[in-house]
Amino acid sequence: MKKIVIDAFGGDNAPEQIVQGGVLALASQSDFNIVLVGNKEKIENILGKLTYDKSRVEILEANEVITNDDIPTDAIRGKKDSTIVVGMEHYKKDEDMVGFISAGSTGAVLAGAIFKIGRIRGINRPALAPVMPTITDGKVMMLDIGANVDCKPEFLCQFALMGSAYMSNALKVANPRVALLSNGTEDKKGNAFNKEVFVMLKELKGINFVGNMEARDILSGDFDVIVTDGFAGNIALKSSEGAVNAVMKMLKKEIMSSFTSKIGAIFMKKSFKNLKNKMDYSKVGGASLLGIDKVVVKCHGASNAETIKCACVQAFDLYESKYIDSIKKSLEDNK
Amino acid sequence: MKKIVIDAFGGDNAPEQIVQGGVLALASQSDFNIVLVGNKEKIENILGKLTYDKSRVEILEANEVITNDDIPTDAIRGKKDSTIVVGMEHYKKDEDMVGFISAGSTGAVLAGAIFKIGRIRGINRPALAPVMPTITDGKVMMLDIGANVDCKPEFLCQFALMGSAYMSNALKVANPRVALLSNGTEDKKGNAFNKEVFVMLKELKGINFVGNMEARDILSGDFDVIVTDGFAGNIALKSSEGAVNAVMKMLKKEIMSSFTSKIGAIFMKKSFKNLKNKMDYSKVGGASLLGIDKVVVKCHGASNAETIKCACVQAFDLYESKYIDSIKKSLEDNK
Repeated sequence: MKKIVIDAFGGDNAPEQIVQGGVLALASQSDFNIVLVGNKEKIENILGKLTYDKSRVEILEANEVITNDDIPTDAIRGKKDSTIVVGMEHYKKDEDMVGFISAGSTGAVLAGAIFKIGRIRGINRPALAPVMPTITDGKVMMLDIGANVDCKPEFLCQFALMGSAYMSNALKVANPRVALLSNGTEDKKGNAFNKEVFVMLKELKGINFVGNMEARDILSGDFDVIVTDGFAGNIALKSSEGAVNAVMKMLKKEIMSSFTSKIGAIFMKKSFKNLKNKMDYSKVGGASLLGIDKVVVKCHGASNAETIKCACVQAFDLYESKYIDSIKKSLEDNK
Repeated sequence: MKKIVIDAFGGDNAPEQIVQGGVLALASQSDFNIVLVGNKEKIENILGKLTYDKSRVEILEANEVITNDDIPTDAIRGKKDSTIVVGMEHYKKDEDMVGFISAGSTGAVLAGAIFKIGRIRGINRPALAPVMPTITDGKVMMLDIGANVDCKPEFLCQFALMGSAYMSNALKVANPRVALLSNGTEDKKGNAFNKEVFVMLKELKGINFVGNMEARDILSGDFDVIVTDGFAGNIALKSSEGAVNAVMKMLKKEIMSSFTSKIGAIFMKKSFKNLKNKMDYSKVGGASLLGIDKVVVKCHGASNAETIKCACVQAFDLYESKYIDSIKKSLEDNK
């Protein structure tokens, strides 16, 4: 039986919500079992309160936790009994283990994945690659959104190949439209770095490069893969998040300042809730770490049981999609 | 009498809305007159339909228009009878002319301002600097948002000085909090470029540098001036714009899909309208071009008469605030 490895002690709601999420995943799917990594006693304590098929859950003992305060690379070297290090070391060797998920420190998951699991040959830097909903009810992947703040142009070409392989294999998008995040749509737009990348993307084989795009069109549905360095990508993602939060807060304030608006809001409760669900991080699992030679899904630090459940299913689907083989083929074609 | 110079042929709604906006500004304020730059016959035609004090309006004849399809620097050199070139050449020389506004090509306004009006001595690159509303009912300036996609670290120090001088003089913010847009709040965050800027901002005299900030907090109200290179700034601004539009579209779709929601929306109409007003570009005038030795306000291409009216008042207020003198003093203090 294939297994999904879960860092039970990563994230703000660990270990309770993480363990519960794993058990929820088992209930929703019979295709995989789970391996919970962490303090055995604490995990068993939580499991004791839940109803599940005991034959489908393994515990992998690890008694240290890497926090956001640790320096990622130091922690991966130093905290040898941490959930990420122990989990990934087993994950690397065991062929039945087909996915790894963590809501812990992004830097540590990234460093651990590079040093303990390893990169795909030909990929310089793995990228953190979330998939977001578009206004046309589609999906768009943006990469990198923060794993690599200093990039060389060739890294972005690799991101383009990886994103394209992911979208066509895992999400069945035919001939994914790949665009470069820039400050305008014209070919000549961009800073010096982007201009170099643009020329290289034009030359790349096996991808459907559609040119430069503007940040205001990220969620437009006009693109399937958006390529950027991790600094600009991080700013794009967090600006969007911040602006949406700000507008929602302003709207709430407006509503609360008037009696008729409050009545209106009652009628609209369901619409607001549906929208919230649509935008909800926890419903989409996590961001893939593309470029690692096995499936790694990084969940939001605030992940709850529902997120973890989705991430387990996502990781298994990713394994089955064979997107990693597809990335390897793309790299081969561009040699 | 002081005068505000208006490019009557810049923007999507020129010349009608622009001329009307100028006349509206006169009605709202008696402190300045206006100079409309463009084709005399067309301007007189529009003015003929309006009621206003004729002694307060001048027309400066210019019969070419620089469009978004023109290459900015070429157009400034080549189109010698364009509204921007003619307007700025007069603006440069005439001491009674105290503000210049245009809703035309951003690149042309920028190039024109540099070549025809000139930079403040000690400023390498002028920055496009909009002021946005925060969720705490304050204002925040971000610069640069697109005038300079390739920056040197010292440009960002100049942006910090200029933004700080603007916020304290023009908007009366005491000791403005200046932050550097980055991918995290910690001192060590940022790409190689940002790390260099961080060290230099720490050393800068006369500004209240509060450190790195994340893009999700742009509208939080925790900062008064956000410093960034024009590429990242452009992405931050447009991502925010795009995300808000996307959420509003998704919300509209949700509302329209349910009868009760539609009823709710009727009750909430006023709240939505108030919010829209708050976010409305046209109510805030335009983005200042900081670093030019006279006041230049660049309005959105989609500006209407209301925007132009606000921009005229804004330009005059900026002149009166003497923020340019304050920038010069800051530069002197950091010599």
